[in-house]
Amino acid sequence: MGRRNPKGMETRDRILTVALELFAESGFTAVTMEEIAASAGVTKGAVYYWFADKDDLGRDLQHDLFERLTATALTEFNADGDIVANMRYAFDAFLRALGTLGHARFFLRDAWTIPALDEGGRRDQEAAVALVQGVLAAAMSRGEIVPLDPEALARVLLGAWVEATLHVLTTGEREPTVTVVEHLIESLRADASSLSTVVTGGAHHRSPKERKPS
Amino acid sequence: MGRRNPKGMETRDRILTVALELFAESGFTAVTMEEIAASAGVTKGAVYYWFADKDDLGRDLQHDLFERLTATALTEFNADGDIVANMRYAFDAFLRALGTLGHARFFLRDAWTIPALDEGGRRDQEAAVALVQGVLAAAMSRGEIVPLDPEALARVLLGAWVEATLHVLTTGEREPTVTVVEHLIESLRADASSLSTVVTGGAHHRSPKERKPS
Repeated sequence: MGRRNPKGMETRDRILTVALELFAESGFTAVTMEEIAASAGVTKGAVYYWFADKDDLGRDLQHDLFERLTATALTEFNADGDIVANMRYAFDAFLRALGTLGHARFFLRDAWTIPALDEGGRRDQEAAVALVQGVLAAAMSRGEIVPLDPEALARVLLGAWVEATLHVLTTGEREPTVTVVEHLIESLRADASSLSTVVTGGAHHRSPKERKPS
Repeated sequence: MGRRNPKGMETRDRILTVALELFAESGFTAVTMEEIAASAGVTKGAVYYWFADKDDLGRDLQHDLFERLTATALTEFNADGDIVANMRYAFDAFLRALGTLGHARFFLRDAWTIPALDEGGRRDQEAAVALVQGVLAAAMSRGEIVPLDPEALARVLLGAWVEATLHVLTTGEREPTVTVVEHLIESLRADASSLSTVVTGGAHHRSPKERKPS
């Protein structure tokens, strides 16, 4: 984690912006701290003032990107509405937000597969597990989704979503993977076996069973 | 990957066995190559003949363990039988096999979360994706499971299974996580509306796109 100090945040942000461009262009491993300093128009010392090393810079960048994507996804999420529909919207929004990252998405793919950066990703994932677990537990207590262990379900879903995201980043195609994830999310509906019951609250979406050809 | 040579395999195996015990006892990071050599009753040079460094040794160990677990899971798997039931059996067998590892399971948890060892895990995962993808594609063509993109589904399921496995390793409890995974696997049944009916193949299902509410 790089140092934080409001006074120099502008320099820090410039370094991060430039680094992201370089990483996205040439790949994380190929870029040196010297190149980052030169492109940002600062001394190497200035870069090392903010970041212990390139891995540290990469972790901060990954964390910032992940936070931005998560914030976008959460704007689509209404915890009071139909929880299953909302999980689908949120995941789709997350993937659409990936698409708006431009070349930065290549860095994000690196970030999730380069061991030294994975540590930061793990921490972000733990925060996401806690968030999703809370949402699931609330939905279970309202009887909206099937009763399963909320932590186990949150971890298993997050594992699925991370791989789904990586696959979309790798193939550049969203639709086939989104369909898979939506199928799994829909399976959590408490009334998945009932053909006509509509889940109360928020947007009404038919469950996969209702949509099946009879 | 350590060197392979039938003549010295006994030494290599002894080093691996001893290392696994030490890693399981003290954690991967705490153990040194010197300690491994001393416990195996060989010189440090002998250890370095077989393994470039501790990470290399750890990756080999992880790979061997993973292969052993996968082999156990596959003995439960009958590609000609009910595919959904078989995926459930195989995953449960995999987790039960973890339970038989004793303290070695602590190393396996390390191996999946220590960045330097993760590289080997990624390679194993790619092999698993190919295997699962083939099984899913065959089951789809027989109409046994819902038509989804086989590669996307394989990756998403593997992501779910890896997190499920880590959670079982962390909590020591199998049942809550197995229930979650079984629920998701069951949702793949082509006739999910009637969980007990066995699909005989050739079932026609509309594509997810056609199923979208208009």
